Amino acid sequence: MPKQDEDFVKEITNKDEDFSKWYVDVIRKADMADYSSIKGCMVIKPYGYELWENIKNSLDKMIKATGHKNAYFPLFVPESLLKKEAEHVEGFAPEVAWVTHGGDEELEERMAIRPTSEAIICDTYSQWIQSWRDLPMLINQWANVVRWEKVTRLFLRTREFLWQEGHTAHATAEEAEEETLKMLGVYKELCENTLAMPVVVGRKSEGQKFPGAVHTYAVEALMSNGWALQAGTSHNLGQHFAKVFDVKYLDQNQQQQYVWQTSWGVTTRLIGGIIMTHGDNSGLIFPPKIAPIQVIIVPIIFEKSKQEVLGKVNQLVNDLSESIRIEADIRDEYTPGWKYNEWELKGVPIRIEVGPRDVKNEQVVMVRRDTREKTFVKDSDLKATIEKTLADIQANLFQRAKDFRDSHTYDVDDFATFESIMEEGRGFIRANWCGSGECEKSIQEKTSATIRCIPLQGAEPTGKCVHCDDEGKYRVYFAKAY
Amino acid sequence: MPKQDEDFVKEITNKDEDFSKWYVDVIRKADMADYSSIKGCMVIKPYGYELWENIKNSLDKMIKATGHKNAYFPLFVPESLLKKEAEHVEGFAPEVAWVTHGGDEELEERMAIRPTSEAIICDTYSQWIQSWRDLPMLINQWANVVRWEKVTRLFLRTREFLWQEGHTAHATAEEAEEETLKMLGVYKELCENTLAMPVVVGRKSEGQKFPGAVHTYAVEALMSNGWALQAGTSHNLGQHFAKVFDVKYLDQNQQQQYVWQTSWGVTTRLIGGIIMTHGDNSGLIFPPKIAPIQVIIVPIIFEKSKQEVLGKVNQLVNDLSESIRIEADIRDEYTPGWKYNEWELKGVPIRIEVGPRDVKNEQVVMVRRDTREKTFVKDSDLKATIEKTLADIQANLFQRAKDFRDSHTYDVDDFATFESIMEEGRGFIRANWCGSGECEKSIQEKTSATIRCIPLQGAEPTGKCVHCDDEGKYRVYFAKAY
Repeated sequence: MPKQDEDFVKEITNKDEDFSKWYVDVIRKADMADYSSIKGCMVIKPYGYELWENIKNSLDKMIKATGHKNAYFPLFVPESLLKKEAEHVEGFAPEVAWVTHGGDEELEERMAIRPTSEAIICDTYSQWIQSWRDLPMLINQWANVVRWEKVTRLFLRTREFLWQEGHTAHATAEEAEEETLKMLGVYKELCENTLAMPVVVGRKSEGQKFPGAVHTYAVEALMSNGWALQAGTSHNLGQHFAKVFDVKYLDQNQQQQYVWQTSWGVTTRLIGGIIMTHGDNSGLIFPPKIAPIQVIIVPIIFEKSKQEVLGKVNQLVNDLSESIRIEADIRDEYTPGWKYNEWELKGVPIRIEVGPRDVKNEQVVMVRRDTREKTFVKDSDLKATIEKTLADIQANLFQRAKDFRDSHTYDVDDFATFESIMEEGRGFIRANWCGSGECEKSIQEKTSATIRCIPLQGAEPTGKCVHCDDEGKYRVYFAKAY
Repeated sequence: MPKQDEDFVKEITNKDEDFSKWYVDVIRKADMADYSSIKGCMVIKPYGYELWENIKNSLDKMIKATGHKNAYFPLFVPESLLKKEAEHVEGFAPEVAWVTHGGDEELEERMAIRPTSEAIICDTYSQWIQSWRDLPMLINQWANVVRWEKVTRLFLRTREFLWQEGHTAHATAEEAEEETLKMLGVYKELCENTLAMPVVVGRKSEGQKFPGAVHTYAVEALMSNGWALQAGTSHNLGQHFAKVFDVKYLDQNQQQQYVWQTSWGVTTRLIGGIIMTHGDNSGLIFPPKIAPIQVIIVPIIFEKSKQEVLGKVNQLVNDLSESIRIEADIRDEYTPGWKYNEWELKGVPIRIEVGPRDVKNEQVVMVRRDTREKTFVKDSDLKATIEKTLADIQANLFQRAKDFRDSHTYDVDDFATFESIMEEGRGFIRANWCGSGECEKSIQEKTSATIRCIPLQGAEPTGKCVHCDDEGKYRVYFAKAY
């Protein structure tokens, strides 16, 4: 390896030595995002934003296919509206950004920049919903939200972030619960099928639920450092908001009834999840389904064969770009080795190298980012081989992450083992829990682990609580979490 | 017409009697948007948002095809950054919403919610741009912005609105000017080709340009009440921002140079433009290319033939929905006549009626929204006929709007005629202008007309200024404008 190529890789912190620093290094070196002049706010750079567009397009199709429509509600929530639901305001008030002036004038009532839109949307629904014919109301919004966090991390926790928030209203409690679980299923499918990120699905404990919800469900992923990431949440709001915002409908017996509501969301933190699930010491690894660039072509240029090589490279881009996101890196000022490192850092699933010999032999060299496997592929087989390989990489990334998750999920029945696993900070612990909030809190104080979820399947307790002497009520997932 | 069908149409104000009220009526009755609890802010309802998504998707492709990439910058602009460019802050400060508190804490420096993002983006570019290799920087952002307007109108002027803003940096003045005009051309193409809305393209007078720009160019449309609408703007920013934000690059001779910048944007006001260009006394008329529903099927149900009719309707939706945005209105509780009125109000380009006789004759009845022309179409010809008719409607809407615009564009050489045309509030006036700001201002005070643009073509003066005795400098477009 020429010196400049070596330097390139050395600039990234080793993942096993300092995971947090590795994380920031790869994001910044790969041009995904950067901090801005506004403390705690990030700039999402084109390469990171393209990934978000791909995630968004996939999820938007799924949201529409399940009968929802997009709409847009105001950025502002008047303080009086935010305060209507007591748990809700208590949960969000400490991290709200307040607008107090419009131009030179002080506002009569200050306004929150939406930390989430239940209040403004329920206020609107109270006007839109009159009769059972107006239900179910199935609406989604793609928007920016602001939470004035003290400690921030690129993509995972920033003062402004992008997300979608679904808000639905139903005639019955059963329909609302069904919707809550349906969207949880959509998130599971998005995470596993599109992002290649395996998740555990379950219900949050009382201590971890959304302020104002009856139940919160979540999809929980395990990052490659053994920490958990809440990747999406789906809330059954019951009638909490309907009652305070007076969202009622006339049922088929001409009786006024309060609606039953849900809300659900995923955010740009999914990008952080993808990075921490798949990345390695050479940088990012993107699942092909959402990779901004699926195939990068690097020509090997010598002066006398330059024309033929570039001719073939252009030909390949032309032939393949209709069905594959493919680009060629024809920059003069970098060596092929430098480019290999850069595109590996940027997580492109397949690299294709084209040199003079490859032109003569009607072939290319194909290198997989996930396994680094290198093969010669005949030009005539190239399209089919790329398509098959992209699917293979997608499946392999999922399997690899699932194997990691499974091998870092521990069934634990005594607290000493619990503590020692958590001291290493590694993985999910499945353990019995008595169901008490104090026990949950005490476990968190001693180990930093929180209950990630009460799984939808396999939550039957197998004995006493891992922490106290009471009977276990559920077998739950614990982890240190972002 | 049964009484209920008549009532439906009567609820819309007559367009010729009160255009403003007609405008709000059609938006609200067609479920496009509504006012919210936050003064001056609107809710974009699903039917309006779908139109925006279609516009956005069309324009996004064009923006990417011209080499730009999307990114996302923070919502906030610290006051010190906003103040750096003097003209810019003077232009925007009176309408800025200010954030003063995060949670319980007062911020050290208050922050504007972006009224536009030049300041925050230039601040970022000063870090991103180092060398000539980093240029041109071609970035676009889809975002919400806030301007604390005193008088608001749905879609046309609201305190929060959605838009795209392109921000580019170039090595030379020539490249920046070329980019400014290229994006003006993209906007013209979007307006005319996609929205069927003819536009005049030109440069803004000094009095009408963007605060901080060297030149502002605009596309100007004429609404069907004879008022003009600025539909999009493209600014050549010169080095104004580069100098105050210190955006410099090292050129190929190792000299530090300031970059040359542009910015350009269109907003959700385009939706207002579409409504006011094409709508009539029955409601909206949407150009097929962006209509959320291109074809609506209304079944004519009688009890004994219900099965066959609904069977055929389902079949049509299944057969056609891959290439056409088609829906069936199978609601029981409304008569066909009611449905015809509702879908006309909602501007769906083609209506298809299917009754028992149509099932027997293997045909449908097809009605165009623009001409109301009614024809029988054989099932076997249906797909081709719909596709051709959608294209015809698109072309006809453009031609109709262009004919209206041309017949309401007046060449005027004396101020008395100018005043009398403007008293009627009707159309574009093409007239000579001396080039002085005072003259421009005085014309506005007397007639409410402003200079819409100095057209890119045909701006050669033909004699004296229409208002004063000085020589004409340009032949410009005047109009009353939104």
